[in-house]
Amino acid sequence: MTQRLIGDHLVEGTMEPGGEIGLRIDQTLTQDATGTLVMQELEALGLDRVRTELSAQYVDHNILQADERNAEDHAFLRSAAQRFGIWYSKPGNGVSHPVHMQHFGRPGATLAGSDSHTCAAGSLGMFAVGTGGLEVALAMAGRPLRLTMPEIWGVRLTGALPEWVSAKDVVLEMLRRHGVKGAVNRVLEYHGPGLSSLTAMDRHVIANMGAELGATTTVFPADDAVRDFLRGEGREDAFTPLAPELDARYDLREEIDLCALEPLIARPTSPGNVVPVREAAGEDIAQAVIGSSANPGLRDFAVVAAMVRGRQTGAGVSLDVNPTSRESLQDLTRSGAVLDLIAAGARIHQAGCLGCIGMGQAPAVGRNSLRTFPRNFPGRSGTEEDAVWLCSPETAAASALTGVITDPRDWAARTGTPCPAGGTVRRTSRNPAMLEPPLPAWEAARVSLVRGPGVSALPELDPLPDAVLAPVLLKMGDDVSTDEISPAGAKALPFRSHIPRLAEFTFTRIDPEYPRRAAEYRDRGGHVVVAGENYGQGSSREHAAITPRYLGLRVVMAKSYARIHWQNLANFGVLALEFEDPADHDRVRQGDELRFEGLRGALAPGAEPSLVVVNTTRDEEYRLRHHLPAHRRRAVLAGGTIPALAAEEAGTSRGPGNAGEAGEIGEAGERDEP
Amino acid sequence: MTQRLIGDHLVEGTMEPGGEIGLRIDQTLTQDATGTLVMQELEALGLDRVRTELSAQYVDHNILQADERNAEDHAFLRSAAQRFGIWYSKPGNGVSHPVHMQHFGRPGATLAGSDSHTCAAGSLGMFAVGTGGLEVALAMAGRPLRLTMPEIWGVRLTGALPEWVSAKDVVLEMLRRHGVKGAVNRVLEYHGPGLSSLTAMDRHVIANMGAELGATTTVFPADDAVRDFLRGEGREDAFTPLAPELDARYDLREEIDLCALEPLIARPTSPGNVVPVREAAGEDIAQAVIGSSANPGLRDFAVVAAMVRGRQTGAGVSLDVNPTSRESLQDLTRSGAVLDLIAAGARIHQAGCLGCIGMGQAPAVGRNSLRTFPRNFPGRSGTEEDAVWLCSPETAAASALTGVITDPRDWAARTGTPCPAGGTVRRTSRNPAMLEPPLPAWEAARVSLVRGPGVSALPELDPLPDAVLAPVLLKMGDDVSTDEISPAGAKALPFRSHIPRLAEFTFTRIDPEYPRRAAEYRDRGGHVVVAGENYGQGSSREHAAITPRYLGLRVVMAKSYARIHWQNLANFGVLALEFEDPADHDRVRQGDELRFEGLRGALAPGAEPSLVVVNTTRDEEYRLRHHLPAHRRRAVLAGGTIPALAAEEAGTSRGPGNAGEAGEIGEAGERDEP
Repeated sequence: MTQRLIGDHLVEGTMEPGGEIGLRIDQTLTQDATGTLVMQELEALGLDRVRTELSAQYVDHNILQADERNAEDHAFLRSAAQRFGIWYSKPGNGVSHPVHMQHFGRPGATLAGSDSHTCAAGSLGMFAVGTGGLEVALAMAGRPLRLTMPEIWGVRLTGALPEWVSAKDVVLEMLRRHGVKGAVNRVLEYHGPGLSSLTAMDRHVIANMGAELGATTTVFPADDAVRDFLRGEGREDAFTPLAPELDARYDLREEIDLCALEPLIARPTSPGNVVPVREAAGEDIAQAVIGSSANPGLRDFAVVAAMVRGRQTGAGVSLDVNPTSRESLQDLTRSGAVLDLIAAGARIHQAGCLGCIGMGQAPAVGRNSLRTFPRNFPGRSGTEEDAVWLCSPETAAASALTGVITDPRDWAARTGTPCPAGGTVRRTSRNPAMLEPPLPAWEAARVSLVRGPGVSALPELDPLPDAVLAPVLLKMGDDVSTDEISPAGAKALPFRSHIPRLAEFTFTRIDPEYPRRAAEYRDRGGHVVVAGENYGQGSSREHAAITPRYLGLRVVMAKSYARIHWQNLANFGVLALEFEDPADHDRVRQGDELRFEGLRGALAPGAEPSLVVVNTTRDEEYRLRHHLPAHRRRAVLAGGTIPALAAEEAGTSRGPGNAGEAGEIGEAGERDEP
Repeated sequence: MTQRLIGDHLVEGTMEPGGEIGLRIDQTLTQDATGTLVMQELEALGLDRVRTELSAQYVDHNILQADERNAEDHAFLRSAAQRFGIWYSKPGNGVSHPVHMQHFGRPGATLAGSDSHTCAAGSLGMFAVGTGGLEVALAMAGRPLRLTMPEIWGVRLTGALPEWVSAKDVVLEMLRRHGVKGAVNRVLEYHGPGLSSLTAMDRHVIANMGAELGATTTVFPADDAVRDFLRGEGREDAFTPLAPELDARYDLREEIDLCALEPLIARPTSPGNVVPVREAAGEDIAQAVIGSSANPGLRDFAVVAAMVRGRQTGAGVSLDVNPTSRESLQDLTRSGAVLDLIAAGARIHQAGCLGCIGMGQAPAVGRNSLRTFPRNFPGRSGTEEDAVWLCSPETAAASALTGVITDPRDWAARTGTPCPAGGTVRRTSRNPAMLEPPLPAWEAARVSLVRGPGVSALPELDPLPDAVLAPVLLKMGDDVSTDEISPAGAKALPFRSHIPRLAEFTFTRIDPEYPRRAAEYRDRGGHVVVAGENYGQGSSREHAAITPRYLGLRVVMAKSYARIHWQNLANFGVLALEFEDPADHDRVRQGDELRFEGLRGALAPGAEPSLVVVNTTRDEEYRLRHHLPAHRRRAVLAGGTIPALAAEEAGTSRGPGNAGEAGEIGEAGERDEP
């Protein structure tokens, strides 16, 4: 299926795993936290109107509106959507991924989104990739999306889920088996007879959290469940079947017997820390939160409502409910599920991401919070020393009622509660009024961008110097997430449209003094950071590349990189190097001074992607490599993709000593991966 | 009625307008933003268990939980409520004033609350006073509440409200006539035949915003409407009638013909800027918000729901709905009103104050936001350059639909919409599970306070020196509100329990540099601020006294003071002086150095409350007075009421040269007003 989806959209490269391919993108998705930058990038690119079949801008992240910045961003995004021919989903309309799936999802289509959970659309047989905002901006401009041809990992599902076990437990099982790096450079392709018992929205749960495994994306077949889903959306005409070949060959194979699964939970502070709920049972909880793109289905709320009906949440527990969308809230209200939730003590919030991206609902320090969310990276909740657990709605509801972590099967046995039927709430609301269609071109051309004082322009980026003498301002270990590089949360998110202000939060989760130290070296050649494996995992936010770059970061040296962040670094002119000998990571220390020479040479077309850096503090040398294909070399040389494109347009290079001639950015067949 | 309520609770003084009286307090109300300090004060006072008939602690202000501090406060408040024998209303249970009215309101009782809208309970024939947190803490400790015997202002209502005009327009009419200082030192006593058409919850709307007129409180009779209300609450046994004497004499008289009222609206940025809606009609709006203690009734939401039913809000408009309480949300959901609101595009938020106290929902700079709230002081919304208007639910809904400020009568005429019946949603939910009753004494005694890292202890306060040589760090004009002194809003509110951190926000709305300058002088004798008329109007927050005091404020010189803030200043040891010649206010400038001598002498028992201050910069002298009764003199001398009580307990004074002997704090018959 993946082969067919890729083959149908291939415009560059060949489908050899590890080689670079370019894909034609049919649809794009942006949300507000990353979207303001994308719109600024479209502006910088001089785009007149998007060249995709469909692009949609959602407002679901920053909707608390703690100060004027959120509302200004919304006005800016609405005007940009009108200007560039983009659908606009108003604040309160809901979370991008399920709303997009419902209104725009189309089997066989490609989707690029500036949100790492864009992959959720794989539930409909789409090829949906979360990537950096600039990649999405380029796709909106009609350019191909470049990525490394992934390996295909066939996951065969057999049997059917037992009572009290649901789709979330399937993907938690994958995380239990393979951890947060298990699917890097791979596509998870689900197939097999077990699929017949999973609705399209159940599959959304599983596809969504493929991001937590590091997968390029997840693909499900477009089968009867998908046809039913689209019929329910009044869009059956969008259906085209997609099924695995009978003799489909996979690079890797996996089998999950759904019958054998039990309720699972990810302990703090990684989605990979999965254990059976019974192993953690009995721990006190202070909060349970239902919602997010990881459990967005009507059934996910209906099950909770059925479980709490006529009961009250535990005395010390806050049960928070984040509806997926305006339409789902409408259905759940009409069915009586919302009434049951309210009567049981739930706090019903507006539709949106909210606590999932740290916008409110922060728990107290060290007090357990159970969430149906996809991620529990440290601090992502808005609380530094948080204790967030990830689980199914069933587990969250049982625990909210008892006040301690509880396997829903044990709760059911104790209370004599039969397992609720999941599909009791029907999707009947057809209410797209908060989803504004693109303006016709003649009208769009007359729209000006509404830019409040909190919306900055993109900062200017200078070309890469040939030599750098700079200190290591930060030495990090493995699995540093983009949440730690550029935090989300209520304090930082409102500054997403203002790079200089947002930069003050860079790396502060790791070291509050980093921005101050970086500022010292900013005009003196910049600085370097050092990291371990899987650097930049998690959210796709390109702010994690722009803000350290704005503060003077020129080079990252790591053992390995997460895909999207590696692309983002190149897009904003930061050179991402890998240690040839991982042991060198241990030798270099924070505060050491490093000397790089011949950087531009190592990025020249065809040049050997290897160089030696001198640690002048310790009098040591380390050998490092980069993996940049030609178009990314040009981007890093020019200071970033936007200056590179500007140079290309001008038919001349801006960088000193850059001999590369202008031309179509990117050559086919190269590997575009760290 | 006021006379009878006061007479029944008088424990000190005589009922001569202007003289100080002490009242026995039956009930207290605290909310989370002021309550954490109250609980810290109870702790500092060494209280074992509250001595009131009933005390209730609500969590309605800080419920967004942008970081761990909110949740820590909630845990602290819950533990303190358990420790001291107080009812605890969980986050999500709703806004204090209507919830208190519904569950605990009792005609004939006195209520002291650490929230300026406590006066709303006057709707039931209670004598309900908003005051500083420490005053409430003292009332909880069984001490009398001291205030100046107010004048009684009889407001006679005749006729009945026309269609599309509601209770909010009645109190806006009072504000139109008399402005924000019109009822200072007065009780508004509503009577007359017009009352028969106003429900108890309508009266809550009017009583609540008596605070905006500066009134000590508002009193309505306890008549059939109140009996009906209590019957609806299942508490008819709490009813006792309260009616004006047939020959009631009022110090002032007012008459409002309800038939003659029209929809009114308060322009930015004062509740006193009231004009007919038609005068402002046609201005674009970006937001409309329904809810708050100023329009908490089921009818206030039901009317909006009926108006938007089957329609959609304006394209550029966000319609935000803040339910009053969990129970009201339950009723509105059951009735279908919530479904109508959702379907029309409303964003339904959790029950609580939210945008009313600047916790979220901040509008974009300069974009009009119509709110059914009580206040629109500049910046209170969370946006510095905001444009917030105050109006009825009818006006807000009509405007949300059209996208421009709209008189609901004109909208009704254009759309052919009949005026919706207000009382269509019945109060049927009886669901007190989020309202936790006090623990029995033996159990309470074993509870320890849960104090997270964000909850500080009260700062130590040193005695007033006899001589002060200090600069004027801020020179202000008239009507400075406590919102400007110690801002609410999402940035500052989370620090409400941590004085040193909160202090960094002091006066920053007026001058961002104030905290820095104050810190410079903090250990060098402190500083002085100068203000005009009505200094410290608005919210009762005692933080507006503690935080500048913490930063070194020793003396305020103003033309006049708002009552609650004046008390708070004395409670935290700041000397509040008034210019004898108001023209001196113009002479003194920011930056001038002032020399005060003989301060302690001017506060000695029986001493002349007058002194001369020397402006050493300009070589000028100004004569000032204070109006402190004996017990407040002792408090200011000792550095605040808590050190004064500590000194009293120890039988000895702490202040240098303080000759006052220990004894019962407060003498009867003195004026306790600025």
